[in-house]
Amino acid sequence: MTAHPKQTPPAEAASTFAGLHHAGEPLLLPNAWDHASARLLAGQGFPAVGTTSLGVAAAVGLPDGEAATREETLRLAVTLGSEAFLLSVDAEGGFSDDPDEVAEFARELYAVGAVGINLEDGLGPVDRHAAKIAAVKQAAPGLFVNARTDTHWLGDGDGTLARLDAYQEAGADGVFVPGLTDLRRIAALVRRLDVPLNILYSPGGPTVAHLAEAGARRISLGSLLYRRALGAALETASDVRAGRTPQGATPPYDEVAGPASR
Amino acid sequence: MTAHPKQTPPAEAASTFAGLHHAGEPLLLPNAWDHASARLLAGQGFPAVGTTSLGVAAAVGLPDGEAATREETLRLAVTLGSEAFLLSVDAEGGFSDDPDEVAEFARELYAVGAVGINLEDGLGPVDRHAAKIAAVKQAAPGLFVNARTDTHWLGDGDGTLARLDAYQEAGADGVFVPGLTDLRRIAALVRRLDVPLNILYSPGGPTVAHLAEAGARRISLGSLLYRRALGAALETASDVRAGRTPQGATPPYDEVAGPASR
Repeated sequence: MTAHPKQTPPAEAASTFAGLHHAGEPLLLPNAWDHASARLLAGQGFPAVGTTSLGVAAAVGLPDGEAATREETLRLAVTLGSEAFLLSVDAEGGFSDDPDEVAEFARELYAVGAVGINLEDGLGPVDRHAAKIAAVKQAAPGLFVNARTDTHWLGDGDGTLARLDAYQEAGADGVFVPGLTDLRRIAALVRRLDVPLNILYSPGGPTVAHLAEAGARRISLGSLLYRRALGAALETASDVRAGRTPQGATPPYDEVAGPASR
Repeated sequence: MTAHPKQTPPAEAASTFAGLHHAGEPLLLPNAWDHASARLLAGQGFPAVGTTSLGVAAAVGLPDGEAATREETLRLAVTLGSEAFLLSVDAEGGFSDDPDEVAEFARELYAVGAVGINLEDGLGPVDRHAAKIAAVKQAAPGLFVNARTDTHWLGDGDGTLARLDAYQEAGADGVFVPGLTDLRRIAALVRRLDVPLNILYSPGGPTVAHLAEAGARRISLGSLLYRRALGAALETASDVRAGRTPQGATPPYDEVAGPASR
């Protein structure tokens, strides 16, 4: 498997991606789990596509959140990095506690065409995560580092600001607080931050427009699309079994097969 | 990546799979594209799961129907072969014109836990396809060989019976005619065959019950589930962008992550 050069130079693509966090509307980032899902999402007009670590791990039967998915994550990045859309990679905690190893992984992602990386703290030591961020920015200065804290995801939200301050200080280009959906708390956090805030869209929670009003600059879909894809496959199989005609949009064969990318 | 032994011995699992083609109802075989989709489909009570060559190829951006997907096909089989459900692998034309190479591939699939294989003729020479079938049955006698002819898929149906006769003669355990949906033609074909006939379900075409009445013994979903999965992901992304609440069943994180398989 070899990477093909993007038509746009990496530094320019990375700069475009960073700019999308400072545009008139927030960046709505759909997360793909494979090549076809990424290509089709880009075809719907999304300028940038993220990956979902849950999708990458579950696709091969590996546990999410562990180092075992490092190889799979890089593999998907290689497959997607040469496409025309902007690619941001969900890299869990960087698959190592060693900042240098995380930096090397980030450098590899940038080399195959990724313009952004998500790094999550998993509520581990603040200093260690800050050190990872600093090491990544040194190894691949053009790569947009989105520093995620799991204070709301795994905890009760205490300490969010202290963590985000440390990550900004370490060089993060943006910060991500999944699980935070309260619009007033989002607005309050935005006022305290120097970098764009990324919020995870939650079905039934605030709309994109409301999140934008509150000041979110990036809204990502996380594992939602992959989980819904699986749900739709199960619905369809169940419909066929029960003698019902399957419902919902179903791209034809040729559209899914698409142009051979290599 | 290593294969774990199935709890059921391979020969016994293969015999169970063959038996499903001769049961009271036809075998409804959903086709998965990755580990999570296969595991969740099996969890819905489908005793056997197939793979979709379109899904395998499109997931990594490779063209369907070409040898480049051999490695990806084996990779998925390794991931799925150790699971508790029965696995049948869509192997296109066997990824080679050489019967011995096809037989070696089939042996590898059987070794990692697959109990069935689909081999398509692509309307190539009848003798060559018959030779592949014979070679596979010699290399992996327990593997259920489903011989597919593309007379309806790629042509006008002429010559179907002559091809199927040759494939039965070569040792095929079942035959597959995608594109054939006319119930009277199905029934007529069934009367002429010695082995179970596999039909590709077509949305809006005959139901499973009607296909069963006509004598189909196996009904597979081909690329339908994968294409519907992609369609649902696009619908969801589009809904979020437009401020609509996404619709449809969406398995929660824990269900998708599932038990770590290794």
